[in-house]
Amino acid sequence: MALVVQKYGGTSVGSVDRIKAVAERVRRTVEGGDKVVVVVSAMAGETDRLFALARQLGTSPNPRETDVLVSTGEQVSAALLAIRLEALGLCALSLLGAQLRLTTDSNHGRARIKSIDVGRVSEALDAGNVVVAAGYQGVDALGNITTLGRGASDLSAVALAAVLRAHRCEIYTDVEGVFTADPNICPAARKLERISYDEMLELAGLGAKVLQARSVELAKRFKVPLMVRSSFTDAAGTWVGEEDRAMENVLVSGVTLDRDQSKITLTGVEDRPGLAAKIFGPIAEAGIVVDMIIQNASAEGRTDLTFTVSRADLPRALALVKEVAAQIGAAGVRHEDQVAKVSVVGCGMRSHAGVAARMFHALAREGINIEMIATSEIKISSVVNIKYGELAVRVLHEALVSGLNAGPREGDR
Amino acid sequence: MALVVQKYGGTSVGSVDRIKAVAERVRRTVEGGDKVVVVVSAMAGETDRLFALARQLGTSPNPRETDVLVSTGEQVSAALLAIRLEALGLCALSLLGAQLRLTTDSNHGRARIKSIDVGRVSEALDAGNVVVAAGYQGVDALGNITTLGRGASDLSAVALAAVLRAHRCEIYTDVEGVFTADPNICPAARKLERISYDEMLELAGLGAKVLQARSVELAKRFKVPLMVRSSFTDAAGTWVGEEDRAMENVLVSGVTLDRDQSKITLTGVEDRPGLAAKIFGPIAEAGIVVDMIIQNASAEGRTDLTFTVSRADLPRALALVKEVAAQIGAAGVRHEDQVAKVSVVGCGMRSHAGVAARMFHALAREGINIEMIATSEIKISSVVNIKYGELAVRVLHEALVSGLNAGPREGDR
Repeated sequence: MALVVQKYGGTSVGSVDRIKAVAERVRRTVEGGDKVVVVVSAMAGETDRLFALARQLGTSPNPRETDVLVSTGEQVSAALLAIRLEALGLCALSLLGAQLRLTTDSNHGRARIKSIDVGRVSEALDAGNVVVAAGYQGVDALGNITTLGRGASDLSAVALAAVLRAHRCEIYTDVEGVFTADPNICPAARKLERISYDEMLELAGLGAKVLQARSVELAKRFKVPLMVRSSFTDAAGTWVGEEDRAMENVLVSGVTLDRDQSKITLTGVEDRPGLAAKIFGPIAEAGIVVDMIIQNASAEGRTDLTFTVSRADLPRALALVKEVAAQIGAAGVRHEDQVAKVSVVGCGMRSHAGVAARMFHALAREGINIEMIATSEIKISSVVNIKYGELAVRVLHEALVSGLNAGPREGDR
Repeated sequence: MALVVQKYGGTSVGSVDRIKAVAERVRRTVEGGDKVVVVVSAMAGETDRLFALARQLGTSPNPRETDVLVSTGEQVSAALLAIRLEALGLCALSLLGAQLRLTTDSNHGRARIKSIDVGRVSEALDAGNVVVAAGYQGVDALGNITTLGRGASDLSAVALAAVLRAHRCEIYTDVEGVFTADPNICPAARKLERISYDEMLELAGLGAKVLQARSVELAKRFKVPLMVRSSFTDAAGTWVGEEDRAMENVLVSGVTLDRDQSKITLTGVEDRPGLAAKIFGPIAEAGIVVDMIIQNASAEGRTDLTFTVSRADLPRALALVKEVAAQIGAAGVRHEDQVAKVSVVGCGMRSHAGVAARMFHALAREGINIEMIATSEIKISSVVNIKYGELAVRVLHEALVSGLNAGPREGDR
């Protein structure tokens, strides 16, 4: 008998019929002899609806009360699924954040998990129940409801799987797994059978919405085997786990595109210590996330500094940078909002040289100019003009994933 | 500085604009120097929507999980109002049933309050907060969410007012107070300035939906002064309190109509001890509420027994009664579903004779036949053919409330 945590996202519980289908799947798992903890998101659209209500009543709604409000979304899903499971003759028990004693800090809207009371869940499981946990929510030391951030039902599921030492954590969503690229952009994209935590982390960070990045980090830390699959079909999904030999044979696991990028360049900046702090300090204080940063070394003691922020943050970032530019005597500030970031990810890069060169060559062959480059151990990102975004994905997928020169992955179909 | 409990019903918080209006009213009360505890219902229609969802997933949805589900309605209202109050610059804190430690028994869907932790609320008030309590919900000894029954946000408000020794409990609704009759039926109906707990209890029991009966009982027991008024206007409402001299001068405070009645008669029943238990035992077990019961004494040892149930319960009640009738050798079972109950209520009846006679005379004058009569200390109810229901209300209102012969109430306008 295995202990399985199954997490169902918003589209998977988005209607009465969907909840019935989820209950059937849970029933099959129970009948297969497994103990099941289900973690549910709010019904699709519900969290947005609640946030919109809050904003109609306050331009920056009180964070504590916003958590009280939006946590009802998962509460409703958990109760409805438990009702359905009971109607199917199973024993089910919904548990909210407070009842799970999923304790967090008091940072409303983006709280961090401190502990989970394993006893409460184990007791309910031992009594023969399917536990239906409301995702996304916790409770602070004072008993206030907290939420863990958008998409954090994944995190709830992985955290429960970790403390319960579950055999696996299945993440049910509306796609069949992790793909080598977005099939809507790249028809040659195929589903991966396996992917490493690190690759998944890079993909999540790059905006592939299959899994929330924090939950992948947690899964990696506690070695929780994740399975990403669809609740709409019975197709096998993608395993996310520790890196193994087979993975190293693959050069690139995925190609991703992030269209939500804009670029700011400070030109003619005096190249001296403390400069970056002067520029990025105020931006960080404003809560703006900076993605890529590049600085060109310069011979004459002056340098150009370029970085990217999301398009929505561009106006605020630009205003702050212009202020700083005047103070530090920069020559000028330029910006560009028609850019996108295309990235290739693969742990095979650790052992294979030349991926970057092949990437640049493939893009150049199509006349796509690279405006910025940033690399990590298992990722290379290039900023290009947004009009080339989709083309760049197809070109790189052909050159590095599905093309003749891409290394095969053992076990892939 | 007084402590005031204000309860806002579903229509009063039924939209973003309504919640804004409620927040304004709370702000005015706070600016007037009072401490305020607000109790809110779910937004109008929300509880029905949630119950309907539950029924789509299970024909008799699990009671524990149904409470988890429907309690979100009040949670949403409480959070939204707190968000609005904060946006107006007030300090507000929403508290759910579990946070209020409003402890109940474990009868899901109709739990009874056992205790409330005054400390938690007092502490929040002393810290300068408006406390926004979610009505209708509590928590049992094991930490399960419970609900107190439909309309029980009134009960939450009165219970909080009682334990906090509030100066008054204001019940805000969509009518301006308690009327001498339904103004839609009887244009001569007028708003009462004051009414006694006992009269209000009878009116609530008769289906006047202004206040939930259990909450009036509780208010009476703890002498909580209630004010029923509209959240849509600034008109003065109706005080519900202890009986005073002025009230005794009034013969009849109100005339009510209950259209949801049906009548069952067992004829030719042997008149011996234990008969009523045989008949009403199975009906009570089936959860069917019996309203009026009359039994005619008989010379020949045989009797007729008539009682009323709501129209929805008629088929089930009839089936049970037919079974019993065969067992006890009754001559027959008759039923009638085209009946209504018209009642007059007034504590003046305690000291004035002849109200019943005047009632019967007034009905007879219009040719309205009385099919059943039942009386209490301050109430007389008559069952009539449903087609005469509205006419009976107008006739009795004219004869006993607004007519020349009706005693005036001091202080009434």
